[in-house]
Amino acid sequence: MITFINNNIDIPYKIFREKYNQAYLQKQDSIQSIAISSFSPKSNEVYSRYVNLKIVDDKNFIFFTNYDSPKSKQFEMHNQISATIFWSKTNTQIRMLAKIQKMSKSFNNEYFINRNLKKNALAISSNQSNQIDSYSQVIENYNRSLESDDLKKCPDYWGGFSFIPYYFEFWDGHESRINKREVYGLAGGIWKHSFLQP
Amino acid sequence: MITFINNNIDIPYKIFREKYNQAYLQKQDSIQSIAISSFSPKSNEVYSRYVNLKIVDDKNFIFFTNYDSPKSKQFEMHNQISATIFWSKTNTQIRMLAKIQKMSKSFNNEYFINRNLKKNALAISSNQSNQIDSYSQVIENYNRSLESDDLKKCPDYWGGFSFIPYYFEFWDGHESRINKREVYGLAGGIWKHSFLQP
Repeated sequence: MITFINNNIDIPYKIFREKYNQAYLQKQDSIQSIAISSFSPKSNEVYSRYVNLKIVDDKNFIFFTNYDSPKSKQFEMHNQISATIFWSKTNTQIRMLAKIQKMSKSFNNEYFINRNLKKNALAISSNQSNQIDSYSQVIENYNRSLESDDLKKCPDYWGGFSFIPYYFEFWDGHESRINKREVYGLAGGIWKHSFLQP
Repeated sequence: MITFINNNIDIPYKIFREKYNQAYLQKQDSIQSIAISSFSPKSNEVYSRYVNLKIVDDKNFIFFTNYDSPKSKQFEMHNQISATIFWSKTNTQIRMLAKIQKMSKSFNNEYFINRNLKKNALAISSNQSNQIDSYSQVIENYNRSLESDDLKKCPDYWGGFSFIPYYFEFWDGHESRINKREVYGLAGGIWKHSFLQP
């Protein structure tokens, strides 16, 4: 589930919320899964992975991760990303383009302290996306953290990212591919609306 | 559904097939949905969208689209992409990095001729991702194509893309985030295996 706070009243945000509610009513599984794609100017490669979208606060779409992970480094080098959702139960796709930035240390501390302690043990013990000898080594590190670390203390290398979209596409699928595509793009502070061919 | 032909026996391809079979047995909906992310050096932006993965033939992962669409132009400018799948029923994520290229005209003709004619009418009538005045205009163009076009003749602007991965990550989710991550990366023609921290 996604937590919505301080609802933004701009049209694409309202549509986002409506589409979410429809998918939720249809019992969409993994409704918070979102593909975040990034670019590394260093390797000249595009990367993508799923994260859990946890919060939409006003204009900010927020998820959490390890700040030393490859994706975090990619965001630092190239702060433009794409964020893409597919809700199969309603055959809805939402495509966003956005700029991304870190959340504040105080926000991260507050969030971490209220989080499931087992998840915190993993966040503390894992050097995300670094190589490791085996999966059993992962479990061993996790168990050590669970026993001996302060699971309420947010490490500096863990926290949220917020992305603010400048482009939304809402795509409704159709069995003969006559898909309906509506776009809202930010131009001079105004959301410009258009239809795209399927 | 994805059609598998000429099964490649390299380890990541075998694992891909096993994970697919598991998701299929669990009745994963939209099992063929895959997020394809691309980069435009022109706008310096990352883009992403879902497509239907139709065929895995030996090393080639194949989907179909409009060759004049923005994504096709992005593939031409930057032929490296990421391709990412999430199967919620088995909590499995597959992340691939790949090089992408067009399929041949003869392959496209052959595929098109055996395809649902209603889908062909849409493929012929739609100038994909170009702006249009309204959704009713989309329907009008589609109906005109359905009535008057040769629906067995593949237009030059429609066809397949094949991507060949050089990197696979198989990610199995865990409720406390002790996710299992196994990677196969191609190095000097050999698939090198490693584990990543969650």
